[in-house]
Amino acid sequence: MQPPEKIDQIIHAKWLIPVVPKGAVLENHCLAISDKKITAICPSDEAKSIFSADREYDLKDHAVIPGLINSHGHASMSLLRGAADDVPLKDWLENYIWPLENEFINEEFVEQGTTLAIAEMITSGTTCFADMYFFPDAVARAATEANIRVQLACPVLDFPSAWAKDAEEYIYKATKLHDDFRNSDLIYTAFGPHAPYTVSDAPLQKISILAEELDLPIHIHIHETSQEVADALAADGMRPIERLHKLGLITPRLLCIHATQLTDDEISLLSQHGASVIHCPESNMKLASGLCEVSKLSKHGVNVALGTDGCASNNDLNMFSEMHSAALLGKIVAEDASAVPAQQALEMATINGAKALGLGDLIGSLEIGKYADITAVDLNCMNAKPIYNPVSQLVYATQAAQVSHVWCGGSVLLENGKLQTLDSKNVATTTTLWQHRIARK
Amino acid sequence: MQPPEKIDQIIHAKWLIPVVPKGAVLENHCLAISDKKITAICPSDEAKSIFSADREYDLKDHAVIPGLINSHGHASMSLLRGAADDVPLKDWLENYIWPLENEFINEEFVEQGTTLAIAEMITSGTTCFADMYFFPDAVARAATEANIRVQLACPVLDFPSAWAKDAEEYIYKATKLHDDFRNSDLIYTAFGPHAPYTVSDAPLQKISILAEELDLPIHIHIHETSQEVADALAADGMRPIERLHKLGLITPRLLCIHATQLTDDEISLLSQHGASVIHCPESNMKLASGLCEVSKLSKHGVNVALGTDGCASNNDLNMFSEMHSAALLGKIVAEDASAVPAQQALEMATINGAKALGLGDLIGSLEIGKYADITAVDLNCMNAKPIYNPVSQLVYATQAAQVSHVWCGGSVLLENGKLQTLDSKNVATTTTLWQHRIARK
Repeated sequence: MQPPEKIDQIIHAKWLIPVVPKGAVLENHCLAISDKKITAICPSDEAKSIFSADREYDLKDHAVIPGLINSHGHASMSLLRGAADDVPLKDWLENYIWPLENEFINEEFVEQGTTLAIAEMITSGTTCFADMYFFPDAVARAATEANIRVQLACPVLDFPSAWAKDAEEYIYKATKLHDDFRNSDLIYTAFGPHAPYTVSDAPLQKISILAEELDLPIHIHIHETSQEVADALAADGMRPIERLHKLGLITPRLLCIHATQLTDDEISLLSQHGASVIHCPESNMKLASGLCEVSKLSKHGVNVALGTDGCASNNDLNMFSEMHSAALLGKIVAEDASAVPAQQALEMATINGAKALGLGDLIGSLEIGKYADITAVDLNCMNAKPIYNPVSQLVYATQAAQVSHVWCGGSVLLENGKLQTLDSKNVATTTTLWQHRIARK
Repeated sequence: MQPPEKIDQIIHAKWLIPVVPKGAVLENHCLAISDKKITAICPSDEAKSIFSADREYDLKDHAVIPGLINSHGHASMSLLRGAADDVPLKDWLENYIWPLENEFINEEFVEQGTTLAIAEMITSGTTCFADMYFFPDAVARAATEANIRVQLACPVLDFPSAWAKDAEEYIYKATKLHDDFRNSDLIYTAFGPHAPYTVSDAPLQKISILAEELDLPIHIHIHETSQEVADALAADGMRPIERLHKLGLITPRLLCIHATQLTDDEISLLSQHGASVIHCPESNMKLASGLCEVSKLSKHGVNVALGTDGCASNNDLNMFSEMHSAALLGKIVAEDASAVPAQQALEMATINGAKALGLGDLIGSLEIGKYADITAVDLNCMNAKPIYNPVSQLVYATQAAQVSHVWCGGSVLLENGKLQTLDSKNVATTTTLWQHRIARK
């Protein structure tokens, strides 16, 4: 008989839902974790004789799933949560969000706002997020502090902001940030040209070349509203997707954020070139932007992942709520109750997000060799009884508050609902100070 | 100086949101409660010298709102939560729900299933629910036990069920139930003819007359899908609403459940005759039934309230999630980000529900003389920071798990998140027994 293998941690789960292979639900199974990664998956009763773990978690009432991946957001805008609701998109941007941003955005705002966002994301089961915002270096500091995985979609615009003065400087800073973090296993970088209507051809072309050379993703808000498409047709004589295609941006590295307005030809184009769509259902509904045809996109082979967007247009970073909204909205848009089933919604929030971010080999599922990015959900509550199908439960009837434990790269970020890498009281105090400053406006 | 007035309870709240008057948010105010009712509302610092209360609650981080009113559901179907998801409506009914109901429905199923539902509803801030299901007497027992307010929409069908053999017996049992509870201040009754396609003209006419004589509401599923309307046109030569109008059912006592398919003339008809619409956004999305035009209905003066529908098509009884979905869906349907603002969603879940149920003078707002049906929501959590507008917070970023305290008629049903009138462990055990029986099918 062999001596037990020493490992860092073992997590026993009532239901282990690895997402890959598709549809698997392993009852009374466990995950072995060493050196930040998942090293084994086996029935819990077999594990006792095989492993000796420094820490053991016995999650008897829990579903254990891959850490959720929020593929689009503007984290520090959490400081503007609820500052402007129930107003039309143009009014919202021009009379509320932009003036507030002009007044308040600086490194401190971004770092502290991102920390608030990360606190909410960890509490609600997210272990990796994509962020498109100014001062991505400050976002990186906040993420490093909390030990959460992030992809910085470094913003590029034609016009100046507090972070850079022109497209050239944005691009320079983005590539510099890439160099700074090229060896990090927690902080990843990408280009984040804001939208076709805010970035002209020359910088888009430059981004396209750099992204290919450095093998980096490109995040862009695109076809968010019918107005955007109509304006582009009037200005450029073509729809934004066509313009991007001419500029060489439609590749597997492209993340099309929102994409509520797509023709069948455009869907084929995205599919053919392997581009992803990042669906933000709650933001699209709240701003009445438009409806993304998730079921149709998926049937055409387009990878669709999920994002909350920023808190100013959501108003939370709750990926359980987002999965729920994606599944429900997907059905009514497809006029088919079998569209966007629970399993698909869960994939959109995990493995599809990983693929979109170019991290499909590292995260997004509970598989041996992947990072131990893990979320445990307590199903011992009234809204989770009875349980015929835990995946359906997670998507249709789970509140994020049921998240009890979260690991990122094997580090415990949340234990029994308590933040481990961040100080809740500090986050609350800092946020209240910002609230008082912003509310005065 | 007068001696302090003796009262039963006093509740101090950081934010008191009475719903009526519209838009009011009273900071650091309190509610005085005696003999089941709200007897005073005043600033907390003034209350100390005025009142001497047997019990005092100091809810410093909380929004205190009227208890939520779930205006449509089938409570005991909670035992079928997640038993059949992601299948088209017809398949769902014919191959899953009806066979399960045929197999399992009896008094015990209804009482125990309703108790599970009530446990979830209390935990998530609901203090009054409308229920359309067989064995309403068993529902009444469960509600009495838990001390939650209910309106029994006693079912009427042309065909037999475990509860009654024909329309005549259903109607007889409904009127008998009305007599049994006519003096109750907790259990209310109504007629619940299932739908135009399951109840023929004669019983509908009889219900219309009885409802007028007894002044009782009539709940009916109507215009839920375009197929229902098309089938009715083919069978009767008219749309269901027109048929109900001819039969004299379109009155202020009518609750039109779902109503996703309404012409402008039908909206005018409902408005003119004071009928209510019960919007079930999550059920409508999950079953891909259709879209209710909430904003348009409201602009035409139709009272629109909110319901979760049964757990088999939702899959929870979470009115916070339902308000959230109603506000988001309302905007995208109206193609207007200012449609169905947060205040309106909150009204739909409170005062509009009270009005629809004919209980507008008794519940639905925090006003002197109304029953002390109250819900407290803890806003001291990451997803509730910062707070610029607590009503927006409640609708767009609150999880039902933040509900800390619930009162119904002054009785405490939930205290610090713990059920007071029900035994959680008993509910869990009973539910698990049903799960094992049902899962075997």
